[in-house]
Amino acid sequence: MKKITINGAGLAGSLLAIYLAKKGYDVDVFEKRPDMRIKDTGGGRSINLALSVRGIQALKEVGLYEEIKQICIPMYGRMIHSIDGQTTFLRYGKDDSEYINSVSRAELNMKLMNMAEQYKNVNLYFNRRCTGINFETNEINYFNEVLNTNENINPEILIATDGATSPVRVEMLKLPRFNFSQEYENYGYKELNIPADKNGNHMLEKNCLHIWPRGSYMLIALPNMDGSFTCTLFMAYDELLGGKNSFEYVNSPDRLKYFLNENFIDVIGLMPELEDDYFKNPTGTLITIKCFPWIHNKIALLGDSAHAIVPFFGQGMNAAFEDCVYLNGYIEKFGDDWNKILDEYQKDRKVNADAIADLAQENFIEMRDLVATEKFQFKKKIESELYKKYPTRFIPKYTMVTFMRIPYKTALVRGKIQEKILNQLSDGISDLEKVNWSLAEKLIDFQLSEI
Amino acid sequence: MKKITINGAGLAGSLLAIYLAKKGYDVDVFEKRPDMRIKDTGGGRSINLALSVRGIQALKEVGLYEEIKQICIPMYGRMIHSIDGQTTFLRYGKDDSEYINSVSRAELNMKLMNMAEQYKNVNLYFNRRCTGINFETNEINYFNEVLNTNENINPEILIATDGATSPVRVEMLKLPRFNFSQEYENYGYKELNIPADKNGNHMLEKNCLHIWPRGSYMLIALPNMDGSFTCTLFMAYDELLGGKNSFEYVNSPDRLKYFLNENFIDVIGLMPELEDDYFKNPTGTLITIKCFPWIHNKIALLGDSAHAIVPFFGQGMNAAFEDCVYLNGYIEKFGDDWNKILDEYQKDRKVNADAIADLAQENFIEMRDLVATEKFQFKKKIESELYKKYPTRFIPKYTMVTFMRIPYKTALVRGKIQEKILNQLSDGISDLEKVNWSLAEKLIDFQLSEI
Repeated sequence: MKKITINGAGLAGSLLAIYLAKKGYDVDVFEKRPDMRIKDTGGGRSINLALSVRGIQALKEVGLYEEIKQICIPMYGRMIHSIDGQTTFLRYGKDDSEYINSVSRAELNMKLMNMAEQYKNVNLYFNRRCTGINFETNEINYFNEVLNTNENINPEILIATDGATSPVRVEMLKLPRFNFSQEYENYGYKELNIPADKNGNHMLEKNCLHIWPRGSYMLIALPNMDGSFTCTLFMAYDELLGGKNSFEYVNSPDRLKYFLNENFIDVIGLMPELEDDYFKNPTGTLITIKCFPWIHNKIALLGDSAHAIVPFFGQGMNAAFEDCVYLNGYIEKFGDDWNKILDEYQKDRKVNADAIADLAQENFIEMRDLVATEKFQFKKKIESELYKKYPTRFIPKYTMVTFMRIPYKTALVRGKIQEKILNQLSDGISDLEKVNWSLAEKLIDFQLSEI
Repeated sequence: MKKITINGAGLAGSLLAIYLAKKGYDVDVFEKRPDMRIKDTGGGRSINLALSVRGIQALKEVGLYEEIKQICIPMYGRMIHSIDGQTTFLRYGKDDSEYINSVSRAELNMKLMNMAEQYKNVNLYFNRRCTGINFETNEINYFNEVLNTNENINPEILIATDGATSPVRVEMLKLPRFNFSQEYENYGYKELNIPADKNGNHMLEKNCLHIWPRGSYMLIALPNMDGSFTCTLFMAYDELLGGKNSFEYVNSPDRLKYFLNENFIDVIGLMPELEDDYFKNPTGTLITIKCFPWIHNKIALLGDSAHAIVPFFGQGMNAAFEDCVYLNGYIEKFGDDWNKILDEYQKDRKVNADAIADLAQENFIEMRDLVATEKFQFKKKIESELYKKYPTRFIPKYTMVTFMRIPYKTALVRGKIQEKILNQLSDGISDLEKVNWSLAEKLIDFQLSEI
């Protein structure tokens, strides 16, 4: 039986270790950070994540879902906060059975690590930073951050789950014919916090994802188990782009106060540490990474290392977990033939990773701008009607991505067609009764097959 | 007066040194290779290049054009070699006054270096390989390949003309918010050679660019001053893509012979060293590089380091030289205000570099495939008629790119509109007399303004 080395014990790496251990492989996982279960390492860029069906499928397959469910907070829809403080609830799914889950990145990661270590064929090694790869000899160089020593290993198979800044992928950049792109948004983000009230309860409606959409910028809030919310302010970096609504311009307590009072009057009272958070927390970057090939000999990229995406569809972790679902499926199909396994994995996942990258970028505009418009909300109503009438042919894009496991690529392609149909049907009207439903039927007949 | 450091003494770096010297700047040029005038260094990836109006403009501005003209061979059009050995001449311009120039990369580079060194405010330093940049302190690290020592400099202004694999750009990858993409074609190339005949004369028609278009692959030949031709075979790397017409498949003398006999029967007799060349020369890669920003503080990218493109429009060098023309123009406009100079340079050139990258990729399909079709040749005839009738409104794409200095972006946008018009006018007919010229006029009136 082969030995498999994993670089990175984040969410994807820890989950993958479990999958492989269950198949009987010996698994060594190398992680550059200290063990987060012992020492708070500040790893990862956001504090809570949205777990949905694709990620849940993976957790079910490894038998961890019931445990994770205990630390999940269901979010049934978006709560839109308009500038005058009014709120509108937009449901994500068809009813309360469809929701996404706010879950702590750190808690989830620790539970995955704990489960991985229950297998005696899994070893986690911390404080090991990958410093280089010799592609001729397949030798991987590590620096032991505790002992200050260099260590070299020669894995039979190496899977890099080492995130958006993947050192393994950086090494692959030197290989001939390695295609690569990194694209930054002109927007950054800042994490803020709404604490629990004195009784430990949530100070905003708990079971939804809150959005303050303001056109070119927005604030969002996701609930935590301790009664707090993690808020994220997304805004242009540069004054040249965002004017007074930019991190460059909002650079003093006075300007921050003015900016918040103008935009988020209903929430600033709930954030006592706001000024401190704003000026102490770093401004995060938003990056999309695409590359190809993901495989070189028996070295493979998985998760963010292969396809980092922006967070606006809440699919970064879910996509990485789905990589594991598929890889596991190919192991079941092809046994120990790793050339075949990796080849099929890459072929299937690359096209879908590209698709979710595009979907996530699209969704930024939807969240920060469109959701606030009547047009958008009217189109959502038409969409919902059409979904009821044609449940296998007109499935909302959000549903395809979040509540189903159909390929992302399919969701992207069908989503575009559906968007055009919705634009056509909503053109010039604002009342459901005026919708031309027979035209709708014709358009759907003509343009959308059954899934 | 500021001192300017240039990294890379290739075509762009040497030319830029002259421009800056003429403006009175002290210029240090660091080059990783030995001095090519003393030692043949095999620098650069192709032996001859196509010099056209944009490059000529730069050479005129620095006063070197008359000298370079002596080593140029005019090419008035494409000579298409069909599979049965028949040839068709397709003129590039409207008459013999419009042509491109085959010129030796090495000769041109050496002449530029010689001229640069005539200025006592220019110093060329060879064997200096850039090994790192500290963006905090603006310190550039060099390794002296002769003395085996490290040298550090602190330039006021650094311009990187260090090519597609630019070490300066590789360092910039580490900067936050640096956008970057490198995209390889699935095709490679191999250089072959047609020597002069025993009297030193060209064995094919001298004053044209020869093409053997074969659909998914092609051979081309450009004339050299010594009576030889440099040939380049462009073909898929992988059998999976190219089948028997791929570098992967054509891997033995027998297969090579069979491949050539099937495809290039009229030329193989002219290449006595063919088998040796094919198996000894490396298979080159074809890369497109885009990045942004090109400027960080007073460090700037120029030429291939900022925008490497595929060679199919013969514009790589011309685009780099045009960067120098514009940079020089901004120096004249803004004096010693280098923030402004670099800012405007970047703003103007980025959009045009992206455009020529796209145009060059499009032209590969035209060269290897379309030129061989009757449809293409018929459209060329219509295009030529329209150009005569509307000389300021319907200018062939090739003419805009090669014989004019209008922005590449304009050429790209107008080229697309014109292509659609040509498709519409040529649809279903093959005779110039059947073209609907009044429809043409309407389409042009409606879609194309004057340039």
